[in-house]
Amino acid sequence: SDSSGALSPEAVKASINKLSQDYPLSSPLFAWSEVEGRNAIIKTYEFTDFNQAWSFMSRTALLAEKMDHHPEWFNVYSTVSVTLTTHDCDGVSTKDIKMARAMDAYARDLLPVRQV
Amino acid sequence: SDSSGALSPEAVKASINKLSQDYPLSSPLFAWSEVEGRNAIIKTYEFTDFNQAWSFMSRTALLAEKMDHHPEWFNVYSTVSVTLTTHDCDGVSTKDIKMARAMDAYARDLLPVRQV
Amino acid sequence: SDSSGALSPEAVKASINKLSQDYPLSSPLFAWSEVEGRNAIIKTYEFTDFNQAWSFMSRTALLAEKMDHHPEWFNVYSTVSVTLTTHDCDGVSTKDIKMARAMDAYARDLLPVRQV
Amino acid sequence: SDSSGALSPEAVKASINKLSQDYPLSSPLFAWSEVEGRNAIIKTYEFTDFNQAWSFMSRTALLAEKMDHHPEWFNVYSTVSVTLTTHDCDGVSTKDIKMARAMDAYARDLLPVRQV
Repeated sequence: SDSSGALSPEAVKASINKLSQDYPLSSPLFAWSEVEGRNAIIKTYEFTDFNQAWSFMSRTALLAEKMDHHPEWFNVYSTVSVTLTTHDCDGVSTKDIKMARAMDAYARDLLPVRQV
Repeated sequence: SDSSGALSPEAVKASINKLSQDYPLSSPLFAWSEVEGRNAIIKTYEFTDFNQAWSFMSRTALLAEKMDHHPEWFNVYSTVSVTLTTHDCDGVSTKDIKMARAMDAYARDLLPVRQV
Repeated sequence: SDSSGALSPEAVKASINKLSQDYPLSSPLFAWSEVEGRNAIIKTYEFTDFNQAWSFMSRTALLAEKMDHHPEWFNVYSTVSVTLTTHDCDGVSTKDIKMARAMDAYARDLLPVRQV
Repeated sequence: SDSSGALSPEAVKASINKLSQDYPLSSPLFAWSEVEGRNAIIKTYEFTDFNQAWSFMSRTALLAEKMDHHPEWFNVYSTVSVTLTTHDCDGVSTKDIKMARAMDAYARDLLPVRQV
């Protein structure tokens, strides 16, 4: 699919499984998963404190503005819950997978003890 | 009450009414209100774009870390929805009102056209 | 000139004079000026505190990443001193003028009392 | 000394030597050193890109506001040069050493390949 088109359900599953393998940060609880009832993927990151969470969000904010593709995210203290979807195609696109991969890499910089 | 104690329901109502008068940014839709079923207050800010929203969040992040008091907030693009509560006292405290007031002031810097 | 080419000395002067008229924030001390001995322009912003300065820098950081054009800047507390130049053309380009204009607009949001 | 008092020259040297041992990020070029002609210490960090540099600055900004102690810093793209001093005592204090240590820890999160 082109970069703004919706991925097929199978491609979404394959992409998030690949991310779980490449960034095995922690328990299955914290892997990317599909949002029930929406064409979107979601992941919750648990950091040590707000300083780390904000650092992670700051890097993502720069990327979002550069890609002109913005997450839906919720934060309280050390927790950041992120939902990714592409409004233009009403689905999960390669833009979302690219952003998910970058966020996992940013998180891995901050959470070395959780790496396998 | 002391700075970490829960305000009475009447004090919460009076405090958020005062904020609406001091920062009449826009319609009643966007005033601080009490969260149903929780001892918390909530407000949704609509900015022009992500750049403004992120600027607002950046100022609030500095304040949160300085006060050691952190918001629950949700962001997507130009929208920031903020919930404030004080866990220590399971209620709305003067810390929340102080933070609400600061956030309204930050928002007013960015939203001059919406001022009355 | 194209967007990455160096502006002529006359075009640089005209551009920064126009900015001073459009954003007459304060005294001549704080207008954009040419850096002696370099093909670059410089301006120092004085904010009220670090919170404002950081907010200004956060907005500029998003823009810089979006434009893939980054300032040289120095900060201490409420002061931000910015130097803009375009390395590709070893001169001041329209990218620099665009960024200077955006920064002046961001600063104006925070410094209403200094406007004429 | 108390937390706002100036450290003796010997204590400053000992503190920055200890930091170089604890955070041996890279070559001697990038260790903390004393600024000639000023009671201050300085270090230059080289990151991979602006995204990393900004992340590092964002964490430091939160800490600075929390400690009410702010760095003098210069950034261009992936480079951040930091000068620390305590104005109240016109010298290097334990606040500066605490901040230097935190910044080294933040940098280490981002620069794993440079660790010994």
